[in-house]
Amino acid sequence: MSAAIDFYFDFSSPYGFLAAQKIEALARKYGRAVDWHPVLLGVIFKETAMAPLTEIPLKGDYSRRDFARSARFHGIDFRMPSKFPIPSQAPARIVLWLKGRDPAFAVRVAKALYRAYFLGDVDISDPEQAIAVAVKEGVNANEARTAIAEPAVKEQLKREVEQAMARGVFGSPYIIVDGEPFWGVDRFEQIERWLATGPF
Amino acid sequence: MSAAIDFYFDFSSPYGFLAAQKIEALARKYGRAVDWHPVLLGVIFKETAMAPLTEIPLKGDYSRRDFARSARFHGIDFRMPSKFPIPSQAPARIVLWLKGRDPAFAVRVAKALYRAYFLGDVDISDPEQAIAVAVKEGVNANEARTAIAEPAVKEQLKREVEQAMARGVFGSPYIIVDGEPFWGVDRFEQIERWLATGPF
Repeated sequence: MSAAIDFYFDFSSPYGFLAAQKIEALARKYGRAVDWHPVLLGVIFKETAMAPLTEIPLKGDYSRRDFARSARFHGIDFRMPSKFPIPSQAPARIVLWLKGRDPAFAVRVAKALYRAYFLGDVDISDPEQAIAVAVKEGVNANEARTAIAEPAVKEQLKREVEQAMARGVFGSPYIIVDGEPFWGVDRFEQIERWLATGPF
Repeated sequence: MSAAIDFYFDFSSPYGFLAAQKIEALARKYGRAVDWHPVLLGVIFKETAMAPLTEIPLKGDYSRRDFARSARFHGIDFRMPSKFPIPSQAPARIVLWLKGRDPAFAVRVAKALYRAYFLGDVDISDPEQAIAVAVKEGVNANEARTAIAEPAVKEQLKREVEQAMARGVFGSPYIIVDGEPFWGVDRFEQIERWLATGPF
């Protein structure tokens, strides 16, 4: 099997949510695994002097329309959360903590957290609500509560974000295939060609 | 024939250049005309507090790579100009002036100007170099020189930009089909579905 595809995403990112629904089928088709990396756009935006899409004049209105239309275009259920954007430390820490134990299970919980936010309007920035989602997947509530507050887990997330930025990650989703970076769910056709034919 | 597709673009925009190579074939396929609107991202970015892509940390390096890769993906020749970005008043005024006389000819000149910048590395922000490109298409040099400096033409461009912003235009290319806005050459699949099936 070739190297895994690196999938960087923020739990608050609508396009990240859409990409999360598609990345595994695409990778599987080309015999690749996916390495899921939750990151914090809030931290990254400070470095790049960028702002959340919906807070930019003109672009904000367009983005809200495009989130929903892009979801329909890809045949993915989507509901704009009532609280947006959100800080995503709590779900990101849960997933990183689980990843250290069982990467496949961490992905399952990551997808459940994304669905809770973008389908169920659950405020996963609230640690207790994020934990409740994880518990439904079989996570122990007290262990999750401890992990979210654990200095080692906090440090792990900080390191993930720093490493992501060192690799050039500035948005979500951001996908790296054999060193080649692709930003956005609208780059999936290019990713597929890269996987199929190699560099073009 | 249904209403024309509104195509907003800045002469300094690589993705606008790519879209300009594709928009007419797409429109023709669905029996649509294209109304070409040169705009000034420099003016629009002041309103939206945005910056040229290549000047944003991290995003800048990615963008340069993505311009070239997207061109290859679409099978379009492309060469990053040595001077980038450029103010695009001169080519925009030439095209708007010609549009008032003969819209089809204005499109021909617009495409020649885009090719000169993104294939020939001609600095079309320089009025004399932009005029030289137009002259090769059959424009009279002295008339073009007068038009670029004409208060009425300047006013016309200012109005185009204001009207574009009033319609929500914040980037290039920006395409409006029957009131529905699409930003980016990477929205062409969605535009095509909209043209084929109507709202989805």
